[in-house]
Amino acid sequence: MREDTLAPHRQFMKQALEQARISFEDQGGIPVGAVIVRDGRVIARGHNNRVQKGSPILHGETDCIQNLGRQKTYRDVTLYTTLSPCMMCAGTIVQFGIPRVVVGQTAVEWPADKPFTGNVEFLRSRGVEVILLEDAACKALFDEFLKKNPEVWLEDIGEE
Amino acid sequence: MREDTLAPHRQFMKQALEQARISFEDQGGIPVGAVIVRDGRVIARGHNNRVQKGSPILHGETDCIQNLGRQKTYRDVTLYTTLSPCMMCAGTIVQFGIPRVVVGQTAVEWPADKPFTGNVEFLRSRGVEVILLEDAACKALFDEFLKKNPEVWLEDIGEE
Repeated sequence: MREDTLAPHRQFMKQALEQARISFEDQGGIPVGAVIVRDGRVIARGHNNRVQKGSPILHGETDCIQNLGRQKTYRDVTLYTTLSPCMMCAGTIVQFGIPRVVVGQTAVEWPADKPFTGNVEFLRSRGVEVILLEDAACKALFDEFLKKNPEVWLEDIGEE
Repeated sequence: MREDTLAPHRQFMKQALEQARISFEDQGGIPVGAVIVRDGRVIARGHNNRVQKGSPILHGETDCIQNLGRQKTYRDVTLYTTLSPCMMCAGTIVQFGIPRVVVGQTAVEWPADKPFTGNVEFLRSRGVEVILLEDAACKALFDEFLKKNPEVWLEDIGEE
């Protein structure tokens, strides 16, 4: 995808990253954030809340979907997430028929023997359009968190 | 599976069904309930909370997982759910490594042109053991709800 086509996506990704920063820097949580956009406007924001609310199911994406509240349809929204969706979040996207997902960081390369690669291929196989930004700022924030609190990351994705 | 092997599962399913009844009969919500069992003991209960809490992500299974709170591992638990997991809940089960799921009602045959068949094959393809009880009481309660409030069911699974 050409960089000028990506530019608007990068603007919305900044708002998702702002959510990740709030989670990590202000609240001591996991730095994954998300926003949902409809008609060119952010209509919901969210971030991982495992640490803050003690909830395993509140990842950036699901927290954002919960914050948006009940919807008649999701066919006209785009979900921005700073990190590639885990299987829970990918399943949620498919179940609710969210047609497009924009991803900041595609993979977490740590631990080396068990990297987290997200579920981009699964989403695409179910007809979801996935745009990968390879956003350096998303990765930089997540790396900072990993240095500080790696065990919480493993817990968040169900690894031991 | 032989009926005497299923008997203990049917006992735990009664407790999941009790959660579904609380949701529907006491709270006007969607009648899907779940319990999580570890070492032969129910350690968490939950039910769909779309109507009660206005949350799209609180299905029976995810509400129950949230109620259980943060866990180091799920490898030693069994999840009982009155209705076959949707893609969100199936993804959640796989992500957190829940090894066994017991299902009350396998499918919702309404609407006829778009029945809800759950994600049993997906779960099995990811190594999850799935036991189908075809529980008549789970189906009877859900049928009662469908007669009363079919639109909420379509909303709950992202159908229009």
